[in-house]
Amino acid sequence: MRDVSIVGIGSTPFGRHAGTPIEQLGVQAAVEALMDAGIDRSRIGALYLGNFISGPLNGKEVLAGIVADQLGLPNIPCTKVEGACASGGIAFRHAWLAIASGQCDAALVVGVETMTHAPTAQTTAALNCAMDNENDGPSGLTFPGLFGLAWRIHADRYGTTREQVSAVVRKNKANGLLNPLAQMGATLTDEQIAASASICDPLQLYDCCPASDGAAALVLVASDRLSGTQGMPINILAAVQTRGSPRIGGHPDLCSFEATVSAARRAYEMAGITPRDVDVVELHDCFSVAEIIDSEDLGLVPRGEGAIWAAEGRTAVGGQIPINPSGGLLAKGHPVGATGVGQLYEVVRQLRGTHPNQVRDAEIGMTHNLGGAGVACTVSLLRRPA
Amino acid sequence: MRDVSIVGIGSTPFGRHAGTPIEQLGVQAAVEALMDAGIDRSRIGALYLGNFISGPLNGKEVLAGIVADQLGLPNIPCTKVEGACASGGIAFRHAWLAIASGQCDAALVVGVETMTHAPTAQTTAALNCAMDNENDGPSGLTFPGLFGLAWRIHADRYGTTREQVSAVVRKNKANGLLNPLAQMGATLTDEQIAASASICDPLQLYDCCPASDGAAALVLVASDRLSGTQGMPINILAAVQTRGSPRIGGHPDLCSFEATVSAARRAYEMAGITPRDVDVVELHDCFSVAEIIDSEDLGLVPRGEGAIWAAEGRTAVGGQIPINPSGGLLAKGHPVGATGVGQLYEVVRQLRGTHPNQVRDAEIGMTHNLGGAGVACTVSLLRRPA
Repeated sequence: MRDVSIVGIGSTPFGRHAGTPIEQLGVQAAVEALMDAGIDRSRIGALYLGNFISGPLNGKEVLAGIVADQLGLPNIPCTKVEGACASGGIAFRHAWLAIASGQCDAALVVGVETMTHAPTAQTTAALNCAMDNENDGPSGLTFPGLFGLAWRIHADRYGTTREQVSAVVRKNKANGLLNPLAQMGATLTDEQIAASASICDPLQLYDCCPASDGAAALVLVASDRLSGTQGMPINILAAVQTRGSPRIGGHPDLCSFEATVSAARRAYEMAGITPRDVDVVELHDCFSVAEIIDSEDLGLVPRGEGAIWAAEGRTAVGGQIPINPSGGLLAKGHPVGATGVGQLYEVVRQLRGTHPNQVRDAEIGMTHNLGGAGVACTVSLLRRPA
Repeated sequence: MRDVSIVGIGSTPFGRHAGTPIEQLGVQAAVEALMDAGIDRSRIGALYLGNFISGPLNGKEVLAGIVADQLGLPNIPCTKVEGACASGGIAFRHAWLAIASGQCDAALVVGVETMTHAPTAQTTAALNCAMDNENDGPSGLTFPGLFGLAWRIHADRYGTTREQVSAVVRKNKANGLLNPLAQMGATLTDEQIAASASICDPLQLYDCCPASDGAAALVLVASDRLSGTQGMPINILAAVQTRGSPRIGGHPDLCSFEATVSAARRAYEMAGITPRDVDVVELHDCFSVAEIIDSEDLGLVPRGEGAIWAAEGRTAVGGQIPINPSGGLLAKGHPVGATGVGQLYEVVRQLRGTHPNQVRDAEIGMTHNLGGAGVACTVSLLRRPA
């Protein structure tokens, strides 16, 4: 397997783009990534596009081919991949694999979603496509329900409090204020969070990521074929994809996702590093409590201490392990198919040293993208050149 | 790149399975393929699932993970891929690639779709997700419209007649009668075809494939890791994926799809053979006229003579180049995401010498799977052991 580098990044702001066709958002992010890489687009040998619910919400599929057409790419394989909220991470892994295995020397990754134009009930129904509806449909659970349950168990087992979880919300919303791409940065107090509407007890409004439109894109090139590209190439140390149970009842413990645990273990092994080597992380905080669980599952924080670390500021920029300096899904937003690609965009900026909420001397970065009720997961590790 | 073989095949009948959950059809085909291969399922290292419109029609995504869960597969990457009607062929190519590139030694391919439960208007709208709706939506064209246009041009340019096109319909419907998996085999006369309802002039009812439910599955294994499998391994000579314009106006000629032409050219080159070496073909006859165009694009029939060859019986079993002995999409049916995988199922049976409509001494077989208005195409070439 060959070494592969990320040489170009692009992203639309995450937020409301109502009226803009979904493929146009994808094209916009892709053009920015191609220009950032300085690469001739005739060199692109594969396109992977991550998208989740453009079918139900837009009546549009074959987006990989449509985006390639509008970009004027060569006659190359163009593939949409889907794994619910992990669709973007899966697209990245396949582009990496296409180059690492020698299928092509350069590839384009696009993640894209539009959601804000649809009525809330339709969006909720579409998001529930990520559930195992035959098995879990009768429970009536939606994703806030699942993470509300997880919170209750975490609280019961580890004594996690509303105030500790609010620390995650405050941190990510504050980080979002520094990120011009973020949808919903804010300065919030514990009182404001605790007074916000109940969504699915104990989850309240500010514990939930918003519905978002947006796109992000990456250009990947074989590390021995960088000539003709510009800027700092960021090396891909690991790109791992795993699965877990799609059923809520299929998880022995709702406070841990096996897909995350195994993806992280394999990624560290592939990269030859330990969690202590990671300088900055963008992880899948679809809900506040998800960040707590993810940080434990990724081995970044001792089991049961995710909430404590957040409350003590150890996951803030400047802390022991900065988590979601972009604002994360909670503040940056969650245009589902774009999210995993957007995380990589953020970490590349950190490793280039050009992030608006920069982690000092960041050398190794991690992304974590989780789909559905833990059915699919990707974890990636990146390193800046020495 | 390593050699890869197909060692197991499975398929549900194509037709109406209303009331059966989509994932259950996928699991049924997969279990049959795994048992056919005789392989321990702990050896499966990747799952690729082709599906097009389960989101809009079933409210279900993450089907790759759900099928893997129900099969009890190990913790492996499970990915849904989508490229409209070529989704199944794309799933096959990615499983081949995962093994050929050394990512894993064995992989499972599943193609699945359910459509017959939905009202016709909803199905038509969902199928139109394969169009470039921003550009072609205002034209009001659906797929019958596109292929009706192509027929008119073919007729104008080459003098193709209703009777010649009917020969394709009669052949495929008759082939379907011999295939127990086929949805709509029939013995038809030219008079019956010409008297059938007009769908989109000149296309009539029998020129159009039906809406279908169904699933097909394949087990692929590295050719140097066949120990522990049973039966005749069928070697994959080529697995190619290309793109063409998603826009109707993007094609310089509606009587030819660039994605097919380039995929065939690359496949012959990859396999080191010529069209004359091909003994049996399953190609994408979503409409009768599509078979005529495809047979020319694949280089199996001289340009402009597709209709003549069909009328002269040269594409029948026993003819010069047997096309769609399964009945094709016209008679076997077209459960969209399953179609490309089902074509490979049929060709493997031909090369094993166990097909119910056997082509004598078939040694090399071809499949051709086309998505949307020619936006995506896969062509595969298989060979039986000497």
